[in-house]
Amino acid sequence: MTFPVVGMVGGGQLARMTHESGIPLGIRFKLLSDTPQDSAAQVVSDVVIGDYRDLDTLRAFARGCDVITFDHEHVPTEHLRALEADGIPVRPGPDALVHAQDKGVMRARLDAIGVPCPRHRIVADPQDVAAFAAEGDGFPVVLKTVRGGYDGKGVWVVGSAEEAAEPFRAGVPVLAEEKVDYVRELAANVVRSPHGQAVAYPVVESRQVDGVCDTVIAPAPDLDEDLALHAEEMALRIAGELGVVGHLAVELFQTRDGRVLVNELAMRPHNSGHWSMDGAVTSQFANHVRAVLDLPLGDPRPRAPWTVMVNVLGGDFPDMYSAYLHCMARDPQLKIHMYGKDVKPGRKVGHVNTYGDDLDDVLERARHAAGYLRGTITE
Amino acid sequence: MTFPVVGMVGGGQLARMTHESGIPLGIRFKLLSDTPQDSAAQVVSDVVIGDYRDLDTLRAFARGCDVITFDHEHVPTEHLRALEADGIPVRPGPDALVHAQDKGVMRARLDAIGVPCPRHRIVADPQDVAAFAAEGDGFPVVLKTVRGGYDGKGVWVVGSAEEAAEPFRAGVPVLAEEKVDYVRELAANVVRSPHGQAVAYPVVESRQVDGVCDTVIAPAPDLDEDLALHAEEMALRIAGELGVVGHLAVELFQTRDGRVLVNELAMRPHNSGHWSMDGAVTSQFANHVRAVLDLPLGDPRPRAPWTVMVNVLGGDFPDMYSAYLHCMARDPQLKIHMYGKDVKPGRKVGHVNTYGDDLDDVLERARHAAGYLRGTITE
Repeated sequence: MTFPVVGMVGGGQLARMTHESGIPLGIRFKLLSDTPQDSAAQVVSDVVIGDYRDLDTLRAFARGCDVITFDHEHVPTEHLRALEADGIPVRPGPDALVHAQDKGVMRARLDAIGVPCPRHRIVADPQDVAAFAAEGDGFPVVLKTVRGGYDGKGVWVVGSAEEAAEPFRAGVPVLAEEKVDYVRELAANVVRSPHGQAVAYPVVESRQVDGVCDTVIAPAPDLDEDLALHAEEMALRIAGELGVVGHLAVELFQTRDGRVLVNELAMRPHNSGHWSMDGAVTSQFANHVRAVLDLPLGDPRPRAPWTVMVNVLGGDFPDMYSAYLHCMARDPQLKIHMYGKDVKPGRKVGHVNTYGDDLDDVLERARHAAGYLRGTITE
Repeated sequence: MTFPVVGMVGGGQLARMTHESGIPLGIRFKLLSDTPQDSAAQVVSDVVIGDYRDLDTLRAFARGCDVITFDHEHVPTEHLRALEADGIPVRPGPDALVHAQDKGVMRARLDAIGVPCPRHRIVADPQDVAAFAAEGDGFPVVLKTVRGGYDGKGVWVVGSAEEAAEPFRAGVPVLAEEKVDYVRELAANVVRSPHGQAVAYPVVESRQVDGVCDTVIAPAPDLDEDLALHAEEMALRIAGELGVVGHLAVELFQTRDGRVLVNELAMRPHNSGHWSMDGAVTSQFANHVRAVLDLPLGDPRPRAPWTVMVNVLGGDFPDMYSAYLHCMARDPQLKIHMYGKDVKPGRKVGHVNTYGDDLDDVLERARHAAGYLRGTITE
């Protein structure tokens, strides 16, 4: 058989779940991981331990891979170009991926193709932040380093020019954005193949706590059908215009006046798509693998009226395994996904999925299980 | 975290799919495999290469495992007893597993607990086979070596005493059974934990071609509800009486006069349960893992009105990967499960699952995909 080898850079939980979803396809999976203890390295057979920031390491890893894809967006663009020059397909490619790596590039490109974003511009210093505020509705203003942020890191909400010093200390360009008056956050997840085939998952509602995704509801409840369709089309258009290959998550603000604005882009399987593992015909991970191999994509439609995902964050007590007894006995339909990571307070160590006909019930079950695993619910 | 280590003896596809199903639980999976090329060894991180028939190898493997379970039923009973004496939980244990290893022991025990089987007895030689035939409705008679058979191997259907020489050549006891006049084969799959909790999957119809499982339909179409309940209860009773831990497949004949008779027992995830990977709330593999860890079991109910599994056998052309293009494009809901095995004619190298509301459609889609992958359908 001539089954291909998929090279995955990064050993986090996204790589772990991509491996899990790739096993049924019979493909070979090769992992570049920082340490043997990383989430994916625990469950993959063919693991290379090394630093993705080192080009020689990447090149040696890529030899024998039919395609390279990613657990994260931190591989330097010039390294990706070097791999492409070596003849290794890199999916998503550097020209697409830069839009998920650099928020300044992303905003400029979305402006150019007419995709609605929060009001924004690159700012030079705290005085310039004050000028940006004055150009619109004033403070508060959101400041973001254009590179390196995730899960609320690298993001500041400032109420005055005096509060705006911190973001400039890193020495990277800073993007200022209006603080959008949104009613909720949504996410539009799509997958696109090199062939140009694309599929759209139903638009979901994503609820954050302290800047970290907490709960995802699929599909987003009470979402106007036209707005849902508009958001899906927008995500498909971004994927096409930017030449994305693989999974693209478009994080959106739903504004009080009924529009959607793009918050962030992620070009890899995404937390807002984890519900699809148990809730869709084809999971985001399975479709990401199919896309990077340029195979026909699988059906993204939901299998149940409602699916809810709640992240399991590390709490005060480190033994989550003993909590399985209660959680599994209470809810035989519960789907637990743990990442093999050590428990640290606030760290994403897993998620749970539930599905069913009654949203209140589905939400309660997922929240209970996640809370019990974390240790914030004890009965 | 104190997540346990599950030791799996045997590197076949059942181990591969058990690993896949265990990843979400965050448990550690350790594999004893004959070669690094074995189906499961390709996808598991922690692999020991060794011979399960060697006690020292088994003992060294078992050190550091919290529980031992199996991909197959070939580990010698005395080795399992030695592991238990070392303090390693073996699930299923040797006293249960012997009923899946030795058809003579199995028949005697099922007789003792009043479970209906085909008429049978151990026979000494071809003359004794003739006597066995004369005690009932005459030839044909089914002869089975009590140990070592699978997928039609170790089974003979003989029309006369003259044809009955072959089975006796191996020098192991031979079991004679009446050739049952059955309308179809069924399978009742159940999973039982050490705790004594048990779940029953819906009874399925299993269609064989040349003694090898070809198609499984879940649930079995047009099966009388009382007979289905009776079969599930029988399987649950066998699991309880024999002290099975983990998955038990009870292969059944449905007779022309409306009874079910036990054909074979398997104490591990089983081909007749592969449909559950995409068709049930909890797959047989996930429930097997939960059972051997004595965790509460998951819901075994179907997620769709009909699920069909068709095995993919090796055909004349070795490149099944290129067939993915056609199969995936034709049916975006198709679920392919390939085992990473080299294609040899007639060898089980994978299976496909389909599900939906219309049985004819679901059957056609699964058959088409399996035939196309094998190369017997080319359009």
